[in-house]
Amino acid sequence: MKISINANRCEPSPMRKFHPLAVKAEKEGKKIYHLNIGQPDLKTPEAYFEAIRAFDPGTLAYEASPGMPVLIEAIRKYYGKIGVDLEPNDILITTGGSEALLLTCLSILDPYTEVIVPEPYYPNYTTFVHAAGGRIRALPTRPEEGYRYANRKRIESLITKNTRAIMITNPGNPTGVVLTQEEMRMIADVAKAHNLFLICDEVYREFCYDDKFGVPCMGRFDDIDENLVIIDSVSKRFSACGARVGCVVTKNKELQQALLKFCQSRLAVATIDQLGAAALYDVDAEFYRESKEEYRKRRDLVIEKLRQIPGVEVEEPMGAFYVMASLPVDDADKFQQWLLESFDHKGDTVMFAPGAPFYETPGKGYNEVRIAYVRDCKELERAMDLLARGIAKYRYEVMGE
Amino acid sequence: MKISINANRCEPSPMRKFHPLAVKAEKEGKKIYHLNIGQPDLKTPEAYFEAIRAFDPGTLAYEASPGMPVLIEAIRKYYGKIGVDLEPNDILITTGGSEALLLTCLSILDPYTEVIVPEPYYPNYTTFVHAAGGRIRALPTRPEEGYRYANRKRIESLITKNTRAIMITNPGNPTGVVLTQEEMRMIADVAKAHNLFLICDEVYREFCYDDKFGVPCMGRFDDIDENLVIIDSVSKRFSACGARVGCVVTKNKELQQALLKFCQSRLAVATIDQLGAAALYDVDAEFYRESKEEYRKRRDLVIEKLRQIPGVEVEEPMGAFYVMASLPVDDADKFQQWLLESFDHKGDTVMFAPGAPFYETPGKGYNEVRIAYVRDCKELERAMDLLARGIAKYRYEVMGE
Repeated sequence: MKISINANRCEPSPMRKFHPLAVKAEKEGKKIYHLNIGQPDLKTPEAYFEAIRAFDPGTLAYEASPGMPVLIEAIRKYYGKIGVDLEPNDILITTGGSEALLLTCLSILDPYTEVIVPEPYYPNYTTFVHAAGGRIRALPTRPEEGYRYANRKRIESLITKNTRAIMITNPGNPTGVVLTQEEMRMIADVAKAHNLFLICDEVYREFCYDDKFGVPCMGRFDDIDENLVIIDSVSKRFSACGARVGCVVTKNKELQQALLKFCQSRLAVATIDQLGAAALYDVDAEFYRESKEEYRKRRDLVIEKLRQIPGVEVEEPMGAFYVMASLPVDDADKFQQWLLESFDHKGDTVMFAPGAPFYETPGKGYNEVRIAYVRDCKELERAMDLLARGIAKYRYEVMGE
Repeated sequence: MKISINANRCEPSPMRKFHPLAVKAEKEGKKIYHLNIGQPDLKTPEAYFEAIRAFDPGTLAYEASPGMPVLIEAIRKYYGKIGVDLEPNDILITTGGSEALLLTCLSILDPYTEVIVPEPYYPNYTTFVHAAGGRIRALPTRPEEGYRYANRKRIESLITKNTRAIMITNPGNPTGVVLTQEEMRMIADVAKAHNLFLICDEVYREFCYDDKFGVPCMGRFDDIDENLVIIDSVSKRFSACGARVGCVVTKNKELQQALLKFCQSRLAVATIDQLGAAALYDVDAEFYRESKEEYRKRRDLVIEKLRQIPGVEVEEPMGAFYVMASLPVDDADKFQQWLLESFDHKGDTVMFAPGAPFYETPGKGYNEVRIAYVRDCKELERAMDLLARGIAKYRYEVMGE
């Protein structure tokens, strides 16, 4: 019995691989500050649970494969408010942004085709691209340039006859980079000029900490309908990760048809979660504002604290709720394992996502970590304290410095 | 921009492709008897909704990628009761049996590898196999042999160096064929002898209408741990299709690791549905008995009625809740379209799944339909009446006979 080549080309999730060690540490009584997963702690709007509690269908039936009309309509209205006109058929509801990405990759990638992705990038992209037999061509960035990647020359130098798509996360995970309007336009132009799909993962759209960015959406350009694929989700926007409700937005009819075949094959997205998600889109503007303000405060705190730790290097992220930081350790993966197995301060320890899997280029990111600032300021302060203590102890005990 | 080869190799779902026409007919005021989708009408046990209503987490968070421990434990206990010992790691929770199938195919198939599947088979298998670049080698059956496929010689004649798996549905969809113990043993032996994965889709396990079959499960053979992959779901068992909760069961460690990587990449299955599903496994044995009795009555009625329609040929299915029937029409696909667009009797019409897409072999199944007996007896009686009237009218008006 053989495991497939594509499965073997995938790696365990760097956000999830330490889960068994974490469970073990917790069983032994340790308290872990989880900054490894982009799992917001903010409350999910009560509307979600109210919609679900009111639901009493008798039989819990399959919904339509493209999604529940009530949810599609809610999303259509939401996009209307941010200046993007959509038809109902332009939206396909998926089981989270994850399924949106997997089905998009399966729909447009053949073996040995390539997707250009600025690195560091969300490591699960690798799995989705590899599942379809494709490969990632990494667009390198520099920490000292704040990981900014919108450089036409560098992007075009990576395009080959096998390139099928450019895939970006805006605002960025893990870097927090947000594109300016000019940069978005340039990337749209490149996709158009080279007949490439432009996959924009915009699940962090509402979390931009400089007002000049507004609520960025590539969908406002109306000349790239054939190229554009927007990946979206309720997970981050509404603190509703466990709903597993997302969508693909595209006006490319051929792609709609391809995606629909995959959607039909898996029948439907969970009924109750779609109902709950539809209710989420009724929250008022204040909800978005408050969430953003909370994350902005946290970002400011984390950056301040990180800059106080000797040897740590970090750039201020402009969006999303992550920051990449270079640590003065030999190997962030080893350091994380040590934090779980051999370290605690008064019974506490801390988890990040080690940086190397966020890079395609071998040798990069080994001393970097992604920190998700998804706890309140008090907890983040303690987590940063634990990081500082952990680094000092690790350098002394393990690295012998 | 190109659509992938694999997406182009997939077809729209025959159960779902008429959905837009059905919506149109319903808008025009027609009542449609839906026997096209295996969507049971039985009530979902109230435990599901109770569990969900009691849930008030504040933040709806990601669950663990392999599934919620409470659900894994519920499934482990359920398997224990049917004589199959599982470790928690042997179970990976998926978004329905559909995701279980897709991730299994992605984990074991390379381009040009083959899966042996008895035909007619559940058409979405094609999409899952094609998504991974594989192809289906159809094991032909004969209606006059009741679609029975457990013929060692015929199976072995299809095995090539590219064969990776044998995939069966037991009890069968769309044929209702249930394997005897001897047949199950023989197929297990073939998989073992040729080092093939044996993918058993057993989502209809509880629906066997001859007591000699009991509750069939390939997992009782303890010598095929390396080969066996069981696909399971709460959809049919508990009339909970809209929950989208299923699982893959395998003791093959390498496969577990491959599947887990894909599970991690999509983060988690919906939290609330997992909680509800766990509660479903607490129903008492009476629930299974009553459901089966209801479907048995329906099967008997549908078979009786079908046999009364001139020109219809049908074998009595032994399990699941489908029957394949040959109709005296030129093209079941055309007939279905006509039923929706040009036919009604007192405002009513009826939907089936046309048969051709259930076959890999070109030219087969064109005058067959799959009927899902998922309505109560009164509705089924009316649906069969509509079918009889539809056939007579279609033959006269369209076929000119």
